[in-house]
Amino acid sequence: MSINSFGHLFRVTTWGESHGPALGATVDGCPPGIPVDASDLQHWLDLRKPGQNKYTTQRRETDEVEILSGVYEGQTTGTPIQLMIRNIDQRSKDYGDIVEKFRPGHADITYWQKYGIRDPRGGGRSSARETASRVAAGGVARAVLAQLAPALQITGYMVQMGPHAIDRARFDWDQITANPFWTPDPDAAVQWAAYLDGLRKSGDSVGAVIEVVARNAPAGLGAPIYGKLDTDLAAAMMSINAVKGVEIGDGMAAAALTGSANADEITMGPGGPLYSSNHAGGILGGISTGQEIVVRFAVKPTSSILTPRKTITKAGATTEIVTKGRHDPCVGIRAVPVGEAMMACVLLDHILLHRGQIGGEVGQNRGKIG
Amino acid sequence: MSINSFGHLFRVTTWGESHGPALGATVDGCPPGIPVDASDLQHWLDLRKPGQNKYTTQRRETDEVEILSGVYEGQTTGTPIQLMIRNIDQRSKDYGDIVEKFRPGHADITYWQKYGIRDPRGGGRSSARETASRVAAGGVARAVLAQLAPALQITGYMVQMGPHAIDRARFDWDQITANPFWTPDPDAAVQWAAYLDGLRKSGDSVGAVIEVVARNAPAGLGAPIYGKLDTDLAAAMMSINAVKGVEIGDGMAAAALTGSANADEITMGPGGPLYSSNHAGGILGGISTGQEIVVRFAVKPTSSILTPRKTITKAGATTEIVTKGRHDPCVGIRAVPVGEAMMACVLLDHILLHRGQIGGEVGQNRGKIG
Amino acid sequence: MSINSFGHLFRVTTWGESHGPALGATVDGCPPGIPVDASDLQHWLDLRKPGQNKYTTQRRETDEVEILSGVYEGQTTGTPIQLMIRNIDQRSKDYGDIVEKFRPGHADITYWQKYGIRDPRGGGRSSARETASRVAAGGVARAVLAQLAPALQITGYMVQMGPHAIDRARFDWDQITANPFWTPDPDAAVQWAAYLDGLRKSGDSVGAVIEVVARNAPAGLGAPIYGKLDTDLAAAMMSINAVKGVEIGDGMAAAALTGSANADEITMGPGGPLYSSNHAGGILGGISTGQEIVVRFAVKPTSSILTPRKTITKAGATTEIVTKGRHDPCVGIRAVPVGEAMMACVLLDHILLHRGQIGGEVGQNRGKIG
Amino acid sequence: MSINSFGHLFRVTTWGESHGPALGATVDGCPPGIPVDASDLQHWLDLRKPGQNKYTTQRRETDEVEILSGVYEGQTTGTPIQLMIRNIDQRSKDYGDIVEKFRPGHADITYWQKYGIRDPRGGGRSSARETASRVAAGGVARAVLAQLAPALQITGYMVQMGPHAIDRARFDWDQITANPFWTPDPDAAVQWAAYLDGLRKSGDSVGAVIEVVARNAPAGLGAPIYGKLDTDLAAAMMSINAVKGVEIGDGMAAAALTGSANADEITMGPGGPLYSSNHAGGILGGISTGQEIVVRFAVKPTSSILTPRKTITKAGATTEIVTKGRHDPCVGIRAVPVGEAMMACVLLDHILLHRGQIGGEVGQNRGKIG
Repeated sequence: MSINSFGHLFRVTTWGESHGPALGATVDGCPPGIPVDASDLQHWLDLRKPGQNKYTTQRRETDEVEILSGVYEGQTTGTPIQLMIRNIDQRSKDYGDIVEKFRPGHADITYWQKYGIRDPRGGGRSSARETASRVAAGGVARAVLAQLAPALQITGYMVQMGPHAIDRARFDWDQITANPFWTPDPDAAVQWAAYLDGLRKSGDSVGAVIEVVARNAPAGLGAPIYGKLDTDLAAAMMSINAVKGVEIGDGMAAAALTGSANADEITMGPGGPLYSSNHAGGILGGISTGQEIVVRFAVKPTSSILTPRKTITKAGATTEIVTKGRHDPCVGIRAVPVGEAMMACVLLDHILLHRGQIGGEVGQNRGKIG
Repeated sequence: MSINSFGHLFRVTTWGESHGPALGATVDGCPPGIPVDASDLQHWLDLRKPGQNKYTTQRRETDEVEILSGVYEGQTTGTPIQLMIRNIDQRSKDYGDIVEKFRPGHADITYWQKYGIRDPRGGGRSSARETASRVAAGGVARAVLAQLAPALQITGYMVQMGPHAIDRARFDWDQITANPFWTPDPDAAVQWAAYLDGLRKSGDSVGAVIEVVARNAPAGLGAPIYGKLDTDLAAAMMSINAVKGVEIGDGMAAAALTGSANADEITMGPGGPLYSSNHAGGILGGISTGQEIVVRFAVKPTSSILTPRKTITKAGATTEIVTKGRHDPCVGIRAVPVGEAMMACVLLDHILLHRGQIGGEVGQNRGKIG
Repeated sequence: MSINSFGHLFRVTTWGESHGPALGATVDGCPPGIPVDASDLQHWLDLRKPGQNKYTTQRRETDEVEILSGVYEGQTTGTPIQLMIRNIDQRSKDYGDIVEKFRPGHADITYWQKYGIRDPRGGGRSSARETASRVAAGGVARAVLAQLAPALQITGYMVQMGPHAIDRARFDWDQITANPFWTPDPDAAVQWAAYLDGLRKSGDSVGAVIEVVARNAPAGLGAPIYGKLDTDLAAAMMSINAVKGVEIGDGMAAAALTGSANADEITMGPGGPLYSSNHAGGILGGISTGQEIVVRFAVKPTSSILTPRKTITKAGATTEIVTKGRHDPCVGIRAVPVGEAMMACVLLDHILLHRGQIGGEVGQNRGKIG
Repeated sequence: MSINSFGHLFRVTTWGESHGPALGATVDGCPPGIPVDASDLQHWLDLRKPGQNKYTTQRRETDEVEILSGVYEGQTTGTPIQLMIRNIDQRSKDYGDIVEKFRPGHADITYWQKYGIRDPRGGGRSSARETASRVAAGGVARAVLAQLAPALQITGYMVQMGPHAIDRARFDWDQITANPFWTPDPDAAVQWAAYLDGLRKSGDSVGAVIEVVARNAPAGLGAPIYGKLDTDLAAAMMSINAVKGVEIGDGMAAAALTGSANADEITMGPGGPLYSSNHAGGILGGISTGQEIVVRFAVKPTSSILTPRKTITKAGATTEIVTKGRHDPCVGIRAVPVGEAMMACVLLDHILLHRGQIGGEVGQNRGKIG
């Protein structure tokens, strides 16, 4: 219910503003006895951290996470885990202009209209900096998943930057961590580097498409109607800043298919059902099939650009704005670890929901085949 | 939390199976004093009703809705409204084959794996018939919106059938109700009719893309992070059967844009802010701008087709299946009123949330411009 | 969140008015594969049914429950279970007077003030008739508990009628079903019968105290802070009509004790911890100890009495009212099965929550002693 | 849903352990534009702070609260407010003995059994120290109430210590803050001081009864069935550490009354309905009447006492324990500001819920009388 909370049983509430003293996440409902320490979480935060290469914002944040509660002698206790990240590099003077002017494409105007007050420093609550809290919470989810579903692998990567999509024929899992764009296509990485350099120099930005895949997820995760696994994944991804579209499996392209082309055929394999294809993205009727769970989302281009844009002031005058500051030319790059974190939270939540309603070990279902 | 419930304050729980005695919706949190009668709701149900033309399933259901509670002397009382629709035309013999075999592309196998029991008659809970409950609940939401936000107009329409998209140059609001496909492009209607006839004869089916637009929605609806208007819209649409992708505004296409092309410029008009374009789909930072709210979703092709497909039995044998019965060749057609209903529920819910947190009349915000 | 819903994972939403066409409960989150049929539920409803003896209202309701969804071939499917009870004996003319006058001690005035509309027939939504829905839902919970925690026994009984408390020295479990007052003290039953006859003749009514005990509940149910087992039990019992106080274990009397008298000492028994006493009512820190879980609640006297009482009309005039109709002289009697039903729902809910967060079989905890 | 969260729209999640680095509260859903600063919150925390006189624990905590988010330039922004209180005086060596032994009357054994891990330092999560977070959150609720319902007054006081109840004939609002026991009866204060001195010297402790009253609360707060104002108040109070009973109005004593004695008669006054009495505690049918809202709760005696008590070890041996450390001889004293804080949170939450569903200004209802 809470508007800054997510999840049914593994429940994450994030808090904090871009330039306030700190931001973080309150994680409730975590299973007990799970080894978690700050350095485990730091690993994931470092992947999202700004200023790692010339393609991301040059804001200098160490994004150091402190665990304030819920962990005792290196293990979760089952009580709420408070994760805090201090803000360090708040150059609020960079944002002087935007106190009176609304940046087009930003939440400035809607927050102002709704609340009659907004923290303009760095976008306040609507800053992409909020996603650091999600990555921290996702780190806790990953630590639990490592115990409950050790075979599960969650991997995000970029499949499109601006108009340039990867070539799936060149897909190589090992390449994903070998380039600054988290792309599995090494040729795309080269092409995108040049493309983004050009954009950065011209003071512009560009959008991207991220895909997140969960391999070795158990069948049976999810529930009917409003508790569907795809419903929760769609909500999770759409809640990330700047996301404008979410797809499961074939996604929007499924509309163009015929029924005979779309339905993944099933045969019996030695270890259970095998599917001829995965148009469904690993989810049927809101419940996982045991195939790869495939989610894709589009991140719009950063709206903070150096190109002058028309806008209005709080006083109601039409004017122009140039958004200086330290911004990501392709914020989609840093959305990759965020998408992974959300996937981890959703899957863990559904694993807990599943054993709540169904019982048994993780991955154990009530229905047998064969 | 509840896996079959949706909404924060205006909360809908649907229940019922395709071939059980009845299905319906429990609507909690409805404002009191709103004129509602069964015939108002019937209007919307009749739009979704099967068997209206040769392009939809020939199952004969009157979809007559009864109001069992929460309405007294024609007005809502503020207590839960129970809406019940009796199932009438249950030809369960049509489904004999699927008791033992799992239909590819259906929830048969995942429900079985998870629960160890499933109601195979017509897909049970996973049937598209469940959406009748949503349309009934959406009818209540519409009745409330007619009082609280009388200028608001919610309209759904089909923008793509299979590979055939409409031509936006021919967009005509008045055409939407003038053809069996709810499309604003009259030429597309002609083309689709021929295309669908061919598919139906060949025993195949096809997907579709639906767009739902809310005009004259107040600015200020929505909330940060997990209570974003776009988050809730994405969840609402993805929860509809067979939906595989959801887009807000430019959606997936936003990935291909530069920042300078994407950010909608703002100027001051006589009645408030004006936007040069609507790439954002009427939502910035999770909060409505006052522009048209634009959501699009892809419906996969019906998996119940006459073409034989490989599958397995409960006993674990690989076999083939042909899904007879009375199915929609393009179930996307009947998803149009469902998408509208979900939009109505989400917008009303956020109107109530807004006045809960912010106070004031509907559409009244705390921040003034000018 | 939903104001007519209760429970975290086993979630019950009740709906319906005293004199509307029907009332019922939507039960979501029920484990699958549980044998449930209408006659099982009817057993519990019959215990609460009006008109069973001269000490309860003479309204003639069969309280026949129909299962509209969520059960297939006699077993729960894991999808929402809709339970409907038709209202039959609506003598609405009995209530003519109260359309304009507010009955003291009733919700008439507050519903009117809040909503500006109310269903006056039999108290509408605020009627004790609503508790039939709870008993039906509790019947489902009992059926699940019979599978998951077969040793668990939930028993309610009356320990006080008006000023007359039972003598605990005469407590006999077998007597509870042997008198119309569900009291374990046979002498009290005789005394109360005479006392209530007198009250009934004088047109008055009286309050009562009900105790509900769960024997053989596993240790470990509950959670910290706001998800405490006692928190949820208190909410469950206080939500029943006419309840004004709730106690766990020693309850209000715990205030009078010293620490040395109150803390239940622990020794090691062959099967686990043994407690010297049960002041705590089986709950420490919000989590069950494995002892008897003991809840007590006070039911105020029925406010519908024949004695004339001062009140006001909708038009604002001071007047008098005599509440005719068919009312319970001690509505606490029929609250016994309701309290049991709420206990069943709360315990099942916490069993599901427990295995969601902790895993393992029912009653299995992570911490070992000895 | 979240087990450490409370409230529907004004939603508080507390976190933290007695001897961890910090504890606090995440407050979501707060209305924007409300003046709040740390010193406002500190005022309430100081009332609950330990070590203020010889009747409370001598632990030295400044309980200084930091606001980490959700407040900008002294006003709430409508985004989550993070309140953090650092723990300072952690003398963990005091607790050495209880790592292996379970203290009777404490949550030690149940936390261990459930989670298989517990933070034994000061009771960890189950410590009464957690209530500091509630008081901080209650301070935010008070700041909002000061704007939305300025006439509302919430006052808690002690009406019974051990077996010694106040004499209501001596009730004096002004005395409440004039003695260390928050009692309105000055003679009781004298008697209790002597009584508690004796207990403290003998190493024992005692229980108490606290009453919290809200004066000038608007009529119309609350909702039917599970969202009743009394349901939420009961849950709020029962969730406080050591509380074993909750009463609304006459509470348990209502059971002893006849209907003619219990129902508060209504007459028409110049400003609206007047009630002859307030047996109902200001709530009818779960909705406030506009009278004083009266809640009472019993706090059991502190279980940490110097008297040796039998208990067992983790290894399963029966032994004895003496709980040294710095404990409250009557923890009920410090529960007074906690009860007030919970009342403030519940009332604000219902004010927001009310205007969400009903609309209009605070205190404005839809139904008119006269």
